[in-house]
Amino acid sequence: MGPITGATMEVSSTFDNMTGLTHDRPVQTSSFCQQFASVGAPDPRAQNSLRQSWEMNYQEAAIYLQEGENNDKFFTHPRNAHALRAYLFAHNHLFYVMELLTAVLLMLLSLSEAPAVPFLRLDVYVHATLELLALVMVAFELCMKLRWLGFHTFIRHKRTMVKTCVLFIQFIEAIVVLVRQTSHLRVTRALRPIFLVDCRYCGAVRRNLRQIFQSLPPFIDILLLLLFFMVIFAILGFCLFSANSADPYFSTLENSIVSLFVLLTTANFPDVMMPAYSKNRWSCIFFIVYLSIELYFIMNLLLAVVFDTFNGVEKMKFKSLLLHKRSAIEHAFQLLVSRQRPDGVCLKQFDGLMRFYRPRMTARDRFLTFKALNHSGATMLSLQDSYKFYEVIGLKWKARRSGEHWFDDLPRTAFLIFKGINLLVKSKAFQYAMYLVVAINGIWILVETNMLNVGVSWTRVVPWSYIIFLTIYGVEVLLKITGLGPLTYFSSGWNLFDFSVTVFAFLGLMALAFDMEPFYFIVVLRPLQLLRLFKIKQRYRNVLDTMFELFPRMASLGLTLIIFYYSFAIVGMEFFADVVYPNCCNTSTVAESYRQINVTIGNRTVLEEGYYYLNNFNNILSSFVTLFELTVVNNWYITMEGVTSQTTHWSRLYFMTFYIVTMVVMTIIVAFILDAFVFRMNYSRKNREPLDDPEDEKGIVFETEVSQTEALQTLDLYKHTLGVTNLSSLQDMCVALERSGHSSLVFVGRRSRTKCDLSMKMYEEEIQEWYEEYSRTNLQPDETFHRELDSPEASATNSIN
Amino acid sequence: MGPITGATMEVSSTFDNMTGLTHDRPVQTSSFCQQFASVGAPDPRAQNSLRQSWEMNYQEAAIYLQEGENNDKFFTHPRNAHALRAYLFAHNHLFYVMELLTAVLLMLLSLSEAPAVPFLRLDVYVHATLELLALVMVAFELCMKLRWLGFHTFIRHKRTMVKTCVLFIQFIEAIVVLVRQTSHLRVTRALRPIFLVDCRYCGAVRRNLRQIFQSLPPFIDILLLLLFFMVIFAILGFCLFSANSADPYFSTLENSIVSLFVLLTTANFPDVMMPAYSKNRWSCIFFIVYLSIELYFIMNLLLAVVFDTFNGVEKMKFKSLLLHKRSAIEHAFQLLVSRQRPDGVCLKQFDGLMRFYRPRMTARDRFLTFKALNHSGATMLSLQDSYKFYEVIGLKWKARRSGEHWFDDLPRTAFLIFKGINLLVKSKAFQYAMYLVVAINGIWILVETNMLNVGVSWTRVVPWSYIIFLTIYGVEVLLKITGLGPLTYFSSGWNLFDFSVTVFAFLGLMALAFDMEPFYFIVVLRPLQLLRLFKIKQRYRNVLDTMFELFPRMASLGLTLIIFYYSFAIVGMEFFADVVYPNCCNTSTVAESYRQINVTIGNRTVLEEGYYYLNNFNNILSSFVTLFELTVVNNWYITMEGVTSQTTHWSRLYFMTFYIVTMVVMTIIVAFILDAFVFRMNYSRKNREPLDDPEDEKGIVFETEVSQTEALQTLDLYKHTLGVTNLSSLQDMCVALERSGHSSLVFVGRRSRTKCDLSMKMYEEEIQEWYEEYSRTNLQPDETFHRELDSPEASATNSIN
Repeated sequence: MGPITGATMEVSSTFDNMTGLTHDRPVQTSSFCQQFASVGAPDPRAQNSLRQSWEMNYQEAAIYLQEGENNDKFFTHPRNAHALRAYLFAHNHLFYVMELLTAVLLMLLSLSEAPAVPFLRLDVYVHATLELLALVMVAFELCMKLRWLGFHTFIRHKRTMVKTCVLFIQFIEAIVVLVRQTSHLRVTRALRPIFLVDCRYCGAVRRNLRQIFQSLPPFIDILLLLLFFMVIFAILGFCLFSANSADPYFSTLENSIVSLFVLLTTANFPDVMMPAYSKNRWSCIFFIVYLSIELYFIMNLLLAVVFDTFNGVEKMKFKSLLLHKRSAIEHAFQLLVSRQRPDGVCLKQFDGLMRFYRPRMTARDRFLTFKALNHSGATMLSLQDSYKFYEVIGLKWKARRSGEHWFDDLPRTAFLIFKGINLLVKSKAFQYAMYLVVAINGIWILVETNMLNVGVSWTRVVPWSYIIFLTIYGVEVLLKITGLGPLTYFSSGWNLFDFSVTVFAFLGLMALAFDMEPFYFIVVLRPLQLLRLFKIKQRYRNVLDTMFELFPRMASLGLTLIIFYYSFAIVGMEFFADVVYPNCCNTSTVAESYRQINVTIGNRTVLEEGYYYLNNFNNILSSFVTLFELTVVNNWYITMEGVTSQTTHWSRLYFMTFYIVTMVVMTIIVAFILDAFVFRMNYSRKNREPLDDPEDEKGIVFETEVSQTEALQTLDLYKHTLGVTNLSSLQDMCVALERSGHSSLVFVGRRSRTKCDLSMKMYEEEIQEWYEEYSRTNLQPDETFHRELDSPEASATNSIN
Repeated sequence: MGPITGATMEVSSTFDNMTGLTHDRPVQTSSFCQQFASVGAPDPRAQNSLRQSWEMNYQEAAIYLQEGENNDKFFTHPRNAHALRAYLFAHNHLFYVMELLTAVLLMLLSLSEAPAVPFLRLDVYVHATLELLALVMVAFELCMKLRWLGFHTFIRHKRTMVKTCVLFIQFIEAIVVLVRQTSHLRVTRALRPIFLVDCRYCGAVRRNLRQIFQSLPPFIDILLLLLFFMVIFAILGFCLFSANSADPYFSTLENSIVSLFVLLTTANFPDVMMPAYSKNRWSCIFFIVYLSIELYFIMNLLLAVVFDTFNGVEKMKFKSLLLHKRSAIEHAFQLLVSRQRPDGVCLKQFDGLMRFYRPRMTARDRFLTFKALNHSGATMLSLQDSYKFYEVIGLKWKARRSGEHWFDDLPRTAFLIFKGINLLVKSKAFQYAMYLVVAINGIWILVETNMLNVGVSWTRVVPWSYIIFLTIYGVEVLLKITGLGPLTYFSSGWNLFDFSVTVFAFLGLMALAFDMEPFYFIVVLRPLQLLRLFKIKQRYRNVLDTMFELFPRMASLGLTLIIFYYSFAIVGMEFFADVVYPNCCNTSTVAESYRQINVTIGNRTVLEEGYYYLNNFNNILSSFVTLFELTVVNNWYITMEGVTSQTTHWSRLYFMTFYIVTMVVMTIIVAFILDAFVFRMNYSRKNREPLDDPEDEKGIVFETEVSQTEALQTLDLYKHTLGVTNLSSLQDMCVALERSGHSSLVFVGRRSRTKCDLSMKMYEEEIQEWYEEYSRTNLQPDETFHRELDSPEASATNSIN
């Protein structure tokens, strides 16, 4: 950038004020900038140095804002230029992706290791080498982190230390495997998910885990109560029923405890009661009382306690995130203000910040974001204005459309045709007609399926009705796209769903026509069209909308569950691989379920299968399926008893631990769903928001008006003083302004609503309290700020204001 | 009562004012009092009539208050003297008990009818005659109600009309049975619980049922979503798996739907997947997706929606009860005020009311209740004062004790001994020593039980350790009783529990000593002592306290569930009695579970039993057990398939309906427990109430101070003017006052805290809004009141005030 030209000097003083072109020095100097010293007169070298200083400040402010967004604690903030370089290296999407891929690779290795999935088996030296490579990558990432954090902070950062230890162990083990050319008992592989959890992209999983651990103490209390009652009842049961030799469930105290533990899950229910019940009908009272206390009372109590804790934890989490963001904004603000104007940030500084914070953002959007923040209409952003930074940053900006429809500019005839289509597809009659078609289709499918004979290869036959319905759907999709315009059409989730189901159905039809075997499943998906019926009723729309809003959280909870699964699967594989097989457990009480024999009925030989040998730990995929079955709980004791009969009694510990762990996670998932829905319903009740407002009303909307002069001035400013090269977006804006003929243009910024926005509104009053408390415990941000202004020049500025 | 004597004329005018002894006429005349006409001068006959008029008013006011307490709508209020007689006949505990007994007898009849419990079987003419008798009783009760309500109101009262219809049907059927001397298909017996539900004492059950019906609409919406997904997946499953001939679960569309319905309950889980899974490992995805959507998402959604609705319904119920009570108080107040003092109720009127409302209450307590209500200290109760009527009415009054301990009056030596014991049992060390003993006892029991050999008749052996521990517990109980005094000791629930467990253990020991077989189960209860350990931790105390607070509601929910059970049991017995028996279902897929064969292993013949034939509908007790098993859900499809294979496919409808009904009731029970606990925790958080405050601090406490003069004046008043004969309570009070030597005595009224009190505090702010809204929609009570004063005399009084 060259020195300041005369042209910019001509702009009005207000504008000058807004852009901050006088030779302001930053109040606070970035810690990255070491060579910078106080500069007096504006000579070229000093000015260059001043510019550099500002750039450093922008960068550090952007880093603060990023830390606020990611909820990184400030004690990990880079402290000098070296740290900065490592920080920048470790904080970009390329690095994150590498981190994620390495972690995923490490986890996927268990597909190919020792008890491998048959078609993915790899030789020992191959997978060990791959593992070593991945571990080296992790080590490299850790080195970068060490450089950035410095040794002292590195040691203090618990998660990183755990990761280092695990890495160390894994390294040694991988080398041992490579040397011995055979896998030993590697239970430590169960720790691999730690690498995944530590990834930047898995922040949600980390938060979930933290929430689970925070909910644990009350959970464990109630769990103890549960187990205590279980033991008491086990003693009672043993006393009452052990005399009955036909009753295997209470023959010893251990059996008694195990039976009642399984009964807790209801998995053995009527069976466990039957021998006692057949001897004395009143013995059912024992079981009824036990189940009423344990299953119907204490288990629900567990849910209540977790739900309550969860509620509190959720709120605390929101509070700390909010205050952390506020603090990040304050840090950034102090780096952006200049000595001459210590109370506000000009467009120039804001633009500099945004070039670091969102490098992809166009100049126009940076300008519009500044305008959106600048609520007071003054030329500078006050601290109060900038608190809304995170709300505004995600907006997508668009000029407000002058016309309503995409076809407004077409010739008259075409316009009328499209207008007609538009009116048609927007009419209630059309919608209800389509619902009717879908309903008929549904009944049709049901009747048709019911009439099909068993064994007929259903997927081979394309009934004519299918083609008719598909044609109707196809026409509907075309009409809607032409009537509403592709942009409007695809902006609705429901339309997207319609479109994809219809397109899939067409693809399936083509696949059938060309006889492509592997795609036949697509045809099977056609009943999904029926889901459209749920748009009719208000409550379903709410439920499905909430479902979509919750989807990210649900996915992260699912991932958390999978991480638990992974660890248990590894342990299971190490100890129980290949222990169950057909006819393995003939000595156990569950022999039946593992039997595989040929039975001759008349002159036909039939294979009688127990199938349970399929629920094994022979490879990681089988283990996952087995663990899912254990999660569903029903008949889980068959798997447990089968494995136990082939190994030792202690195997039960594994299964019982797994049950308790999944119980924790599942209870928390239930609490989460409960909380989310109740929250959502309370929200819409509190804000008297009619939940059925049109779809485009949803989301967060900001509006800002740009006048022609303002636009031209901004363009000028960017072109001449900020040295921004890519100005096409701003130029487009100016052109659009001129073409429209109006003196100003309204730009609309939109983004979809997040849970955070809902919480902001729900806790409105409490948030004010939190802020007050926050500013009481911290120093008043303005005060800290003024206190740092100790030069007489600055205090003079201050007294003038 | 004679005419007013001169003695009363001497009392101070304030006191005169307070007791209302001038010849006041009531503002409003009771509708029962027909002969009463406006009375002018105070001549003896007129005065007698005036007194009668007042008595009528007291009675009607008492009825209003009773209606407010029982939440009876005012349109069922008796309107004249005839109605009053019927009302009084139908509203006393004798009548209620009769009503209840009749209903219970009717329900119990099914123990002896056709598929009867073996040892309770009665001949047809016996149980039919009993039934007819009971039905005649019900008819008589209905006649009383008709007299009291009048034909018009009777017709309008829906519940009564339903009852009448059911009675009519039952009557005809009972006669038919008596004539034919054999029971026909009497499904209508399933309606018998209606008689029970209509009982006065089953108000809580009625409210539960109402709440269940109110929660139904959102529940049904989500249920439809659930079933819709089920059908879609059934079609998909049929398409995907019907080609596999080894897979019986998806062979037809009907099978497919049934399998997925059962899968919804997880009862057939891994089994239903196994045939498909053994053919293609990827087919598990179908089941995982199905369960994730249906079981883990929509089922929880169901809970969330019910929980949310429940919350709202609970609040609305509280609101309407509260406003109904307020309205009842207003009605009663208007009947109690006199023309001379239209703004307040004197002690005389209040006492008159209380003699009708609580006939058992002593004169002293009536006086103290009046004092407690009279917060302003004026001589009369204002309307505002009387709004607290229901809060005060349940209090138990006691003079505040001057001494702390029961042994304060004993001689010195005894006092010191008891004081020592008192200090001992109150010391932390003693408590923890006892916890230690209990813990050791627990471990001891566990170890001992574990070491016992199988088959040893455990209950015959009394180990010496048992006697030692029991002695320690006995000594502890004695020490505590002597140290704290029996009254203090038994006022704590925990002590009561300790005491009863210890006494039971002693009884059990005696039973053993005298070899009384049937009592051996008492010995088995000794591990219950271990429950005492839960006093240690704060959270457990809260949980158990809340449990005790919730117990009445829980019991009523249980009763509601039993009513559903009863109806289903009757239907089940009518259709499925004796359809399952050993080896009955050899053609079905669940033949195994019904098999009963002798198997020869080596040279030993063993009976292999499937036992499931025990889960039948052969009599009402078996039906209840079977239904409980269906409620627990595990393996319920075995019962369903067994019955289905012996009857028709339509039997499944019965089982599926039962599942859905219990799902509703169970979800509501879960929602209730959740709501109650979350409410309780919020309450203690909101009120910053340390939940561990000493036990005697809990409950509602009112205090009132009575001076000596006041007491004497009141005694005088009661003796001479009110004609109350039983004055011993008041005389005792006067004597106590004199003996204490103080000029006044403080009386303390206590009662335990109810859910209503908690709600009052929780909704404090909203309650004010409700009241305002209420007084806006109704006329201002004072206004209605003044409007009725249309006689010039009254308005004169009014203008004087």
